Amino acid sequence: MKLKLDLEDFRVPDGKPFRIAKAKTKIKSLYRDDAHYEQLFSEFRVEIDDLQQKMYAQDRQGLLLIFQAMDAAGKDSTIKHVMSGVNTQGVEVHAFKRPTSAELDHDFMWRHLRVLPPRGRIGIFNRSYYEEVLVCRIHPEIVTKIQRLPAKTTRNLDKLFADRLKDIANFEAYCDRNGIRIVKFFLHVSKAEQKKRFLARIDTPSKNWKFEEGDVKERGHWDEYMAAYQDTIRHTATDDCPWYVVPADDKKNMRLIVSAAVLHEMQGMKLKYPELPAEQKARLAAAREFLAAEK
Amino acid sequence: MKLKLDLEDFRVPDGKPFRIAKAKTKIKSLYRDDAHYEQLFSEFRVEIDDLQQKMYAQDRQGLLLIFQAMDAAGKDSTIKHVMSGVNTQGVEVHAFKRPTSAELDHDFMWRHLRVLPPRGRIGIFNRSYYEEVLVCRIHPEIVTKIQRLPAKTTRNLDKLFADRLKDIANFEAYCDRNGIRIVKFFLHVSKAEQKKRFLARIDTPSKNWKFEEGDVKERGHWDEYMAAYQDTIRHTATDDCPWYVVPADDKKNMRLIVSAAVLHEMQGMKLKYPELPAEQKARLAAAREFLAAEK
Repeated sequence: MKLKLDLEDFRVPDGKPFRIAKAKTKIKSLYRDDAHYEQLFSEFRVEIDDLQQKMYAQDRQGLLLIFQAMDAAGKDSTIKHVMSGVNTQGVEVHAFKRPTSAELDHDFMWRHLRVLPPRGRIGIFNRSYYEEVLVCRIHPEIVTKIQRLPAKTTRNLDKLFADRLKDIANFEAYCDRNGIRIVKFFLHVSKAEQKKRFLARIDTPSKNWKFEEGDVKERGHWDEYMAAYQDTIRHTATDDCPWYVVPADDKKNMRLIVSAAVLHEMQGMKLKYPELPAEQKARLAAAREFLAAEK
Repeated sequence: MKLKLDLEDFRVPDGKPFRIAKAKTKIKSLYRDDAHYEQLFSEFRVEIDDLQQKMYAQDRQGLLLIFQAMDAAGKDSTIKHVMSGVNTQGVEVHAFKRPTSAELDHDFMWRHLRVLPPRGRIGIFNRSYYEEVLVCRIHPEIVTKIQRLPAKTTRNLDKLFADRLKDIANFEAYCDRNGIRIVKFFLHVSKAEQKKRFLARIDTPSKNWKFEEGDVKERGHWDEYMAAYQDTIRHTATDDCPWYVVPADDKKNMRLIVSAAVLHEMQGMKLKYPELPAEQKARLAAAREFLAAEK
């Protein structure tokens, strides 16, 4: 009972023609009911876990999944659910908050690059260096006042952000060639749905901790954020390092699409258990003989 | 009594026309005698230390000095001497040896990027990611057998090395824009002088530890190494991230040139003590008054 889903509806393998106004926040439900959802979802889990084991054994390639979204789109819960079936030893999640002053002393990629996943592992970034061309674009004072960049760099902010996008694209292509695949998710929630979720956070005591006053203020910049996302995706979506723009108004739909996407990208990595060279196989055979002869 | 030296003889601000066959390993002595050398050298030390203090106080820019050379060219002693006058707190040296297996699990830049100098500091790399386009080119089995790269990357080694050079150039330009200046030194020793120094290492018990049998074998690849250096410098020397090709047959000449180069590059960074905003100056004045009034 496979999922009927055309990932090409959400995968952006070439950023140039991307238009955010055409990207959906809502689609027809992919599952009939909760039981159906659970079944589909657990099938993905099993397949992703299987491929992750191969990735770990093969130890030639790593995978970095980046999650970006407006507040309350469901980044945390999506990461939690999609990765819940995968061996913890094979996955590492990093959440990037406001940089510390030690981090600000470095180039903006530094804190992300040092925790890039190694071969054999899946790394997950909850927010990422993409904030450098998203929130920084909406609030350029971060760049001009907080990041302590040399004057020649901050003189022309258009150039600065264009350079950052090119640097990110260059860097991701470099990673891909060197065995670390990078796949990016934009969990695309509608402004109306965000409002609903913010209200729930305010009205539900157990959700209060998730709400920050600033979040409502950021909402005021919605259109600017959408423009920044569009420009970002246009300049950094390639077939090797694609973006997925995932409708986020229904969380279960979203998780199914993200799971399908992760599986699809892993299937493209030619993961398989390494085959031992003849010499090592001979040693295995000798070991078997030795064990069998044991009294 | 300033040094008479035209750095443009050694600075490569545009790699394209660079020809290693024209690069000198020996020049006319820059100093009259040891006393003269010491004097010139200590003048550089004072000036470099002064600029480093400004760099530290300004805290907007960092400087990475990369040293590459054939064996016995004098990397270690040059680093030791040139940096000996600078406040240790402002400098960090990293020597890169054969990568560990944990390092091999990452992309080739990883172990270097995580120790990039922060703003306000001078970082020194004794060998660097440039080995990835030097020794790896002479011994491609490192790339195909040891580095565990995906097959699509190792299929075409010419492309692999061309990509690496482009990745390095992109990365250095990114660093420069983000406040970390990268300056590269090729300490250029002649094959005859290397032989002399190897013999000294073999014949002097206190120098024995510096000699490795493999070094003599690498010497057999001299011309290939020179070709690899030429190609590397051609593709990665820019005005913002220049190479210096420094004649290394006379160590004192070499140290003077390296010192002059470091000073020259720091002078180009517009380093100065930060001026306090009026508000903070007022607070200083208030503190002065408070202290003066103390009984």
